[in-house]
Amino acid sequence: MRIVLGVEYAGNAFEGFQSQAHGRTVQDHLEAAIGHIAAHPVRLHCAGRTDTGVHATAQVVHFDTESVRPNSGWVRGVNSRLSSPVVVRWATEASDEFHARFCAVSRRYRYILHNSPVRPALLAGRVGWFHPPLDEIAMAEAARCLEGWHDFSAFRAAGCQAKSPVKLMHEVRVQRAGDYIVFDFWANAFLHHMVRNLVGALVYVGKGRHSAAWLAEVLAARDRSLAALTFPADGLYLCGVEYALHWSLPGEGRIIVVPRIPFV
Amino acid sequence: MRIVLGVEYAGNAFEGFQSQAHGRTVQDHLEAAIGHIAAHPVRLHCAGRTDTGVHATAQVVHFDTESVRPNSGWVRGVNSRLSSPVVVRWATEASDEFHARFCAVSRRYRYILHNSPVRPALLAGRVGWFHPPLDEIAMAEAARCLEGWHDFSAFRAAGCQAKSPVKLMHEVRVQRAGDYIVFDFWANAFLHHMVRNLVGALVYVGKGRHSAAWLAEVLAARDRSLAALTFPADGLYLCGVEYALHWSLPGEGRIIVVPRIPFV
Repeated sequence: MRIVLGVEYAGNAFEGFQSQAHGRTVQDHLEAAIGHIAAHPVRLHCAGRTDTGVHATAQVVHFDTESVRPNSGWVRGVNSRLSSPVVVRWATEASDEFHARFCAVSRRYRYILHNSPVRPALLAGRVGWFHPPLDEIAMAEAARCLEGWHDFSAFRAAGCQAKSPVKLMHEVRVQRAGDYIVFDFWANAFLHHMVRNLVGALVYVGKGRHSAAWLAEVLAARDRSLAALTFPADGLYLCGVEYALHWSLPGEGRIIVVPRIPFV
Repeated sequence: MRIVLGVEYAGNAFEGFQSQAHGRTVQDHLEAAIGHIAAHPVRLHCAGRTDTGVHATAQVVHFDTESVRPNSGWVRGVNSRLSSPVVVRWATEASDEFHARFCAVSRRYRYILHNSPVRPALLAGRVGWFHPPLDEIAMAEAARCLEGWHDFSAFRAAGCQAKSPVKLMHEVRVQRAGDYIVFDFWANAFLHHMVRNLVGALVYVGKGRHSAAWLAEVLAARDRSLAALTFPADGLYLCGVEYALHWSLPGEGRIIVVPRIPFV
């Protein structure tokens, strides 16, 4: 039987999602805890393989097991075996045709940037930081050219394994909230480092170094060397994965959940 | 000359504010960094001595020096010597009569509680956690009895060194924001563990174990043994210290600043 889980983690505590020999990844921690509850080794598949330092509020994973447990066992039981900052938020059974990665129809990423002369202390590792003042209106206008079907090669990391650089960007939003700038990206899929590279290019526009037209030119040129630097992972969150309704996953698995928590 | 600083830190990275021989406190880190910029040892005085694990968005400290530096030196210079999650957000010169602790007319603390069946991962160490559902309306109603001048002995830690347990509580607010409950306390001063003990008692009301009348009785009885457990430090923030206007401190030093950051 196939079990689907919603997972939250603080990315700066792990060396990425995908399992590695050293065992310090989200997948390694989760597989050990789930394997203990299932009483056999399990192999996880995830919706989005996040890099070192990238957080998730709504990662979706699945695994197969013959062990019958109540859903609460896959949540509370597994969580009782996890001491690091990763938790299972929900669990549900799905049909054997479901696949966390291949059935996902879209993903949402959020980048939170602390735009202040002083580096963040309280949210160190949880937000990016950029010192000079940024024009969020200019960035929001420039971002419009990214929406729709595009070849995103200009924002693709060298080692990216995606079959095609052409993705459908449903929406990009850039908003200011006090000293923070929030970048929201919603696309059918993302290339490796795509969000961090897009944020880097938008920041060039926001600080007035380049115009909105420059961003459109870089996109059209499909040349990574023309774009900007890759922004650090600190402020990046995988915060939504959407699936067709017929899979009947809990809300977090198909509809974005980005609660605004009243942080100090 | 007397220099005043606004300071932010993540409390879970330090063993409290006040200097100790082992050197792992906020004060030890700050004094070392400031002493390097001042080119002589300095002694800090703070508005509120926070415990291990308690965070601050707007701690206020002062020190004396004969070294002349621009305010930006006390901010950027000191921050360049700090690698742990503590930063100076602003600096200003004040008259020799100013004292960060004795001139403060009120303090504000916020407690953020994650009210969810699943423990927090992303905000582990930054929010408290309580599993059963809580009634924030009942807690807000009960909290009203705390406002005004009261003897808060029922919520005072055994080792508290305050001269008097009588404090003026200007306002208590309890609000829900999704899975989070935010408790705001504004008083002229606080006893040791007072906020964490008040949150513990309010949670008893919120889960229906006790009524609002019980909280008023506990307060009136002035007996610590009648109240509830001390809540963990994780969700507690010193987020405002107020001074008379004539000291001309920057906004954060006299008016509370609690920006709502759009966290995921």
